[in-house]
Amino acid sequence: MAAHALRKAAYRQLEPSAWPKKGLSPVNLFLVVLIVIAVISAVLETEPMIASGNDDFFKYLELGLGVVFLVEYLARVWVAVDNPRFAKARYPRLRYMVSPLAIIDLLAVIPTFFAFGGAPSLALRFFRVLRMLRLAKLGRTSDAWHDIRESIYERRHEFGLILGLLMLTILVSGSLLYVAEAEAQPDKFGSIPRALWWAIVTLTTVGYGDAYPVTVLGRVLAGLIAITGVTVIALPTGIFAASFSDAMDRRRQKANGDTDGAA
Amino acid sequence: MAAHALRKAAYRQLEPSAWPKKGLSPVNLFLVVLIVIAVISAVLETEPMIASGNDDFFKYLELGLGVVFLVEYLARVWVAVDNPRFAKARYPRLRYMVSPLAIIDLLAVIPTFFAFGGAPSLALRFFRVLRMLRLAKLGRTSDAWHDIRESIYERRHEFGLILGLLMLTILVSGSLLYVAEAEAQPDKFGSIPRALWWAIVTLTTVGYGDAYPVTVLGRVLAGLIAITGVTVIALPTGIFAASFSDAMDRRRQKANGDTDGAA
Amino acid sequence: MAAHALRKAAYRQLEPSAWPKKGLSPVNLFLVVLIVIAVISAVLETEPMIASGNDDFFKYLELGLGVVFLVEYLARVWVAVDNPRFAKARYPRLRYMVSPLAIIDLLAVIPTFFAFGGAPSLALRFFRVLRMLRLAKLGRTSDAWHDIRESIYERRHEFGLILGLLMLTILVSGSLLYVAEAEAQPDKFGSIPRALWWAIVTLTTVGYGDAYPVTVLGRVLAGLIAITGVTVIALPTGIFAASFSDAMDRRRQKANGDTDGAA
Amino acid sequence: MAAHALRKAAYRQLEPSAWPKKGLSPVNLFLVVLIVIAVISAVLETEPMIASGNDDFFKYLELGLGVVFLVEYLARVWVAVDNPRFAKARYPRLRYMVSPLAIIDLLAVIPTFFAFGGAPSLALRFFRVLRMLRLAKLGRTSDAWHDIRESIYERRHEFGLILGLLMLTILVSGSLLYVAEAEAQPDKFGSIPRALWWAIVTLTTVGYGDAYPVTVLGRVLAGLIAITGVTVIALPTGIFAASFSDAMDRRRQKANGDTDGAA
Repeated sequence: MAAHALRKAAYRQLEPSAWPKKGLSPVNLFLVVLIVIAVISAVLETEPMIASGNDDFFKYLELGLGVVFLVEYLARVWVAVDNPRFAKARYPRLRYMVSPLAIIDLLAVIPTFFAFGGAPSLALRFFRVLRMLRLAKLGRTSDAWHDIRESIYERRHEFGLILGLLMLTILVSGSLLYVAEAEAQPDKFGSIPRALWWAIVTLTTVGYGDAYPVTVLGRVLAGLIAITGVTVIALPTGIFAASFSDAMDRRRQKANGDTDGAA
Repeated sequence: MAAHALRKAAYRQLEPSAWPKKGLSPVNLFLVVLIVIAVISAVLETEPMIASGNDDFFKYLELGLGVVFLVEYLARVWVAVDNPRFAKARYPRLRYMVSPLAIIDLLAVIPTFFAFGGAPSLALRFFRVLRMLRLAKLGRTSDAWHDIRESIYERRHEFGLILGLLMLTILVSGSLLYVAEAEAQPDKFGSIPRALWWAIVTLTTVGYGDAYPVTVLGRVLAGLIAITGVTVIALPTGIFAASFSDAMDRRRQKANGDTDGAA
Repeated sequence: MAAHALRKAAYRQLEPSAWPKKGLSPVNLFLVVLIVIAVISAVLETEPMIASGNDDFFKYLELGLGVVFLVEYLARVWVAVDNPRFAKARYPRLRYMVSPLAIIDLLAVIPTFFAFGGAPSLALRFFRVLRMLRLAKLGRTSDAWHDIRESIYERRHEFGLILGLLMLTILVSGSLLYVAEAEAQPDKFGSIPRALWWAIVTLTTVGYGDAYPVTVLGRVLAGLIAITGVTVIALPTGIFAASFSDAMDRRRQKANGDTDGAA
Repeated sequence: MAAHALRKAAYRQLEPSAWPKKGLSPVNLFLVVLIVIAVISAVLETEPMIASGNDDFFKYLELGLGVVFLVEYLARVWVAVDNPRFAKARYPRLRYMVSPLAIIDLLAVIPTFFAFGGAPSLALRFFRVLRMLRLAKLGRTSDAWHDIRESIYERRHEFGLILGLLMLTILVSGSLLYVAEAEAQPDKFGSIPRALWWAIVTLTTVGYGDAYPVTVLGRVLAGLIAITGVTVIALPTGIFAASFSDAMDRRRQKANGDTDGAA
């Protein structure tokens, strides 16, 4: 009975939608703070200027965080039977464990036990960066993702069309510059994949300056491509901004409507 | 009689608008996959890091694709008599052969027999890139081009005006920097055509960094040009985004209207 | 009497609003072609790769164009008495000569007699570029300028506000980087005017790469400036695009309204 | 009695809302001119090419400006008792002295007495730049800040959401490139903080070219990041432009409504 009451209390603390008051429960608030600390620590630890000499500090901080996140994961599995979403399943806890957020929780615990020791190899860097996954844990406490996903979903035809147009523009631009510049700069335009790097850097207007045409034909083509292509690449922005703004307006109206209904 | 029925069946398979079910016919779906393979292969073949040692693989893949696309072309000519668009013409097949999509189909077959052997010359590169034309074959299976063309056509006056404004801005910017920088950097600003390269790279905000003013007068002018000019260049985007978004909304409303009418 | 009739005919040919048919009069069409030739020639002549060996060609072309534009100017002065805008003035021709377009016409003739000979000095370059003024002559044959001016005028408060915000952002950004980077890079950030060049190049997202922060403080500041500042600089575009689009819609509605009224 | 009348007159001169006529009072107009001079002088003084030899000119100009601004500050404190906003407080002048604009006024006077002598140290540069604060004094005479603040406040949820999305995109992009490029370019991608500099420069499309991926994996990731990420970063612009445009429309309607009501 006491275990049951304790589990209920833990469930209310852990599941944001079950928290009766406004805002986040103390436990979730504490976890949000820990996630932010974990991410900042994961970023700073990779910088030798900061990490060297403080190896132990980062090591024990990471271990402490890993233990807390492991306990959190186990607690969430434990209280899953109280969640109406999983309660009706045959094995509610197993059903919870295969939900996306639970898998992310587990994946975000793993790096703690692999991110140490050895040379700064690709694997070490991979596990260090895997800790960034902890940011995804914040998704549980925010409904902002819903708005963004809705914006993209609502205009999925436009985005699909523009993605195709975009890939076409990049492919055609790279191919043209490959024809024009391959002889003059074989290392930068000697193949279409190499020229595609130039095309992406130019059409997004990033323009690092590591590759640019030097022949007259190449410059004339690049000038025309830059002017027309910039338009195509900038399109998703305009459409996403309009759609996102609409989604937020609807949310605001709905919130007002609910308030009006309640009043 | 059997030949006639076979041709009818082939027509239904080849012409998307004649396919009675939803989506693409098996033959067109197969051709779309082949087009995607052909384009990826054409891109990768140009990269020595990938192609060297695999010459035979790319050669036989290209030959195989070329044969299929040739058969497709001949089949499309053969079934053209069933197409209501061409059926009333005196020579329906000849009439089909001079339609834009048929010419593209033919042009996209040609490179197969020229894209091999010899040094990586300009002509070889040209024929290799000509294979990208196969992407245009996808136009047959999509009505997205219609939306994009409609967006541009609807706002053709705005685009015409802005194109003029754009060329004017580039010309004036290049000329001013030519006056200011020709002595200090004759290789980069020593003539108006050279300064125009700077103007395009700056006004599109690509900014490679291969040419930039170094004199005080040049920098003051370039600063003013960058701030005011960026506005002019970014205009088509805003207008195209608005117009494209309108065109998609109309299509959606029309689709809903048709559904309503059917219901 | 004959002179009077000739002048009337010349006036109808020269003044676009007096031409009774649709489009441009033959004389104005011919002048438009000459202006385009004059501008292309003025651009190409400055490029040694094109001009060397063709000096005489460009010289006589320019002289011929100069004579035609001079005759045009005198003819426009001659027919000014037929123009209702100037006819009521005491000295209609003098009144016309001080109108902006007439002054531009005169200024565009002058370079012909100064753009030759001598070393490629600043003065020579200035006179060569002054020929670009001939483009402004096109303003007579187009009412596009009206739309653009109207768009800017309608939102003049927004533009004024944004111009102030823009200058403030550039000034503050440059000052901050001057504080952070002056010691590390005195040649690029050693004074606020120098740092302003960096600020303009960064905030317009041109990013040549000739100046960028290297200290930790400088990079943190530059990162924050880039993210927040890009928003401010991009604002005029959005507002101008909206306002320009509105102006074009009004013109279209007005044109339709006129057609409806006539029908 | 005379002192009282004098203070009342000074208050009307100093407080824009108390000035009975349209526009700015002569004293405030004079102060605006001085502020502009002070800022231009503060910018130019830092440039050795301009300042060297003119040290005395800038020194005495700054001293003169500092004295005027000090007198202005004291006068504003003196007249604070006439301001209805502070008049009801127990100590109106003290109440005024702790208001934001009064603190800015005081801070803007301080640099005068620290901005001279010694080597061009960090402290000297800091005090020089502090003079830019005088620009904030202009806030008193303009209600433009109100519009901008209102635009931001109205869409604060969108901005908050986008700021989070932005930081997430930068963090994820930097982390991915750190995994891919740390071995090839340890000085530029050897830690996540270093890779974040690349991420900001790329996602804002500034693209200095001081850091860019060179490995195949790095370029593929950077290409995908550039295309998708540019959209996220450009979002605030579209939303701010829409919101700012709305705020200006409301102000215009309100102004028209007031005029209508008065008529």
